[in-house]
Amino acid sequence: MPAADKPGDLEELGRRVRAAAAKLALATTAAKNEALLTAADLLEARSTDILRANAGDVERAGGEGVSSAVVDRLALDDGRVRAMAAGLRAVAALPDPVGEVVEGARRPNGLEVSRVRVPLGVVGVIYENRPNVTADAAALCLKAGNAAFLRGSSAALSSNVAIAGVVREALGKAGLPEDGVVLVEDTSHETAERFVRLDGVIDCLIPRGGHALVSMIREKASVPYVIDGDGNCHVYVHEAADLDMADRIVENAKTSRPSVCNAMESLVVDEAVARSFLPRVAATLRRHGVELLGDERARAVLGDIPRATEEDFAREFLDLRLSIAVVDGLDAAIAHVRRYSSGHSEAIVTGDLQAARRFVAEVDAAAVLVNASTRFVDGGELGLGAEVGISTQKLHARGPMGLRELTSTKYVVYGEGQVRT
Amino acid sequence: MPAADKPGDLEELGRRVRAAAAKLALATTAAKNEALLTAADLLEARSTDILRANAGDVERAGGEGVSSAVVDRLALDDGRVRAMAAGLRAVAALPDPVGEVVEGARRPNGLEVSRVRVPLGVVGVIYENRPNVTADAAALCLKAGNAAFLRGSSAALSSNVAIAGVVREALGKAGLPEDGVVLVEDTSHETAERFVRLDGVIDCLIPRGGHALVSMIREKASVPYVIDGDGNCHVYVHEAADLDMADRIVENAKTSRPSVCNAMESLVVDEAVARSFLPRVAATLRRHGVELLGDERARAVLGDIPRATEEDFAREFLDLRLSIAVVDGLDAAIAHVRRYSSGHSEAIVTGDLQAARRFVAEVDAAAVLVNASTRFVDGGELGLGAEVGISTQKLHARGPMGLRELTSTKYVVYGEGQVRT
Repeated sequence: MPAADKPGDLEELGRRVRAAAAKLALATTAAKNEALLTAADLLEARSTDILRANAGDVERAGGEGVSSAVVDRLALDDGRVRAMAAGLRAVAALPDPVGEVVEGARRPNGLEVSRVRVPLGVVGVIYENRPNVTADAAALCLKAGNAAFLRGSSAALSSNVAIAGVVREALGKAGLPEDGVVLVEDTSHETAERFVRLDGVIDCLIPRGGHALVSMIREKASVPYVIDGDGNCHVYVHEAADLDMADRIVENAKTSRPSVCNAMESLVVDEAVARSFLPRVAATLRRHGVELLGDERARAVLGDIPRATEEDFAREFLDLRLSIAVVDGLDAAIAHVRRYSSGHSEAIVTGDLQAARRFVAEVDAAAVLVNASTRFVDGGELGLGAEVGISTQKLHARGPMGLRELTSTKYVVYGEGQVRT
Repeated sequence: MPAADKPGDLEELGRRVRAAAAKLALATTAAKNEALLTAADLLEARSTDILRANAGDVERAGGEGVSSAVVDRLALDDGRVRAMAAGLRAVAALPDPVGEVVEGARRPNGLEVSRVRVPLGVVGVIYENRPNVTADAAALCLKAGNAAFLRGSSAALSSNVAIAGVVREALGKAGLPEDGVVLVEDTSHETAERFVRLDGVIDCLIPRGGHALVSMIREKASVPYVIDGDGNCHVYVHEAADLDMADRIVENAKTSRPSVCNAMESLVVDEAVARSFLPRVAATLRRHGVELLGDERARAVLGDIPRATEEDFAREFLDLRLSIAVVDGLDAAIAHVRRYSSGHSEAIVTGDLQAARRFVAEVDAAAVLVNASTRFVDGGELGLGAEVGISTQKLHARGPMGLRELTSTKYVVYGEGQVRT
């Protein structure tokens, strides 16, 4: 394995990735893009090797009785390798965020002050089974001038080693330090806990995984992190909604990809339109196999559905299930959404301007949508080009995180001998 | 004490401050400014009461044998109360950051996407003896639409209760919730540790205090925080420096206020100018009573100074002491600064463009200055209007934190029925 690291001392890997980060921070856009495009070509050229490594991972996982959903996330094929290469080329085509002058001014004393976008340094990514994250995360980190310190799962280890090796080789060919991408091959839980406490090594940690991973990080991490939280997303159908539009939006938000965080989990409907809207939207959703749960007022209209409990309203199903609440109007709808929202994406369907504006102002979430599907809350759809995740935090980044969210800024001050009085 | 909270259940205080935050987030600029101006007037009108409460604090501190420096930070007089009132009026005069449209675009599918500045929610501030922080922090939080959840020291408790009471009364008079400012009156260490773990209550924690406080937060806090770290600030005198300018900048950076974080702690001088520059700058600094420590090469020039150890170079003296290193040129200077920098503020003095540009690019700090004193790294001096602190973190805010750094953003999306394909 010339192209990736032997399981070794985590602190030593940290020193190497930090040294590489200092060089990558100064890399030209041309060199970074060359590395990305070379990595894309190499991924395709080495497809056979990568798929062989992956087949080993898949076989081991099967032997260990892992669920078929996990095996599906783990397994690569020619199409998935080509998709990874295409992802690298897409990142190469994005504008370089480094060096952007965010703002600036000449102060009354003649000092020229600017705030300039700079890389974060070392971005740690801790992730679960999908091996494509190795390529995706490395590409976004590199384009933003950061070194990527990756810690994937044990199930995907051989695949990750093969993919990281290709990206490292491409970095070398582009004249950049291979340690700009370092994969931690020790996949023990103890090492994960040490990884999230590498103060002075990791400038920003991004977890990509489920609840257990996020909880471990909230509990153990001492390095700064940005968390991609749950999406308990609501669509509220206001009494002044166009009900055809509401039906289309609910159908799309709930059924186009129920397993993702921007999928709808709960429908809130004004009492005034519940009798005209609920039966038709129920028919639409049932055609897609969605199971409906409702509060007493929804059940009074739909009759045959199970009761939605407090837990159901608070839950991100990530599945073909939907909770339904009927409310008295805008105030009650806002109160309901504020109570159960996980702060991800919330939508209102209405033709009433004041209702739209109040919902936008009073609902506290990373994204609030008027007359559009929650499924649009995604880096690509909102114009960020690519995304590393969707933050439900309020500090640093909120909502889809693109290349810019993988940077910090630095004040640069030019003077001609000014001193402070 | 009608105007402040009885020591009570921390969680109950948290519920009250969160409820107030939801209302403050929607407050108009006019109402927020009215509250700030009313608080300024009331501080002056109630000056006698505030000074009486403060005299009690000072007397208790004296009785407990607290150091005179601490008593000085604790003590208020008429001038300090007027300065607090002036601070509130200055914050009222600043532009409201809430509602700023940071960016926006119409997407190809017709969705209108904007990113809008919104309050963080509840800002927790945990601080030490200075009672003026109660007014300053509350004012900045309020102007940015946040509720302020304050936990000051036990020594300043009566002063803080009096000042917080005035601000709460002003909030009420302006039609805003008094719980927009809540002071925790239980000043036990246990309560401080519970305070920094109020997940779901505190959206952002800002510590204002020394090492012990910052360490406690790094170790115990589970809420998001922004830390105002050390400033081990360097001034590097390059061989192409104007030595008169270098002398003025070093004098100002080191001696104008040695106890603050943007004061200079270490001088780095090119060998080529060490013999011409060091003796004159030593004379300048000694006139101010600065004690000099140096590496072997600095001692070879200055002779009579003690040796600076590794610890000295790594240390923020916050005092009239300065470490001096002589280096071979730009590369060595950058390496020295990168090794010892705390990431606060670093300056180069040079007439050489390439040297300036390399120093700016390769030194990793919140602020890098060319031909200017490090003392300019301050919210007021850099044009932010006021500051809550200076972040040495890279996430969320880096460098001086003003009103904008007390906000987050929200994506707002308007459509006309768009669904995702």
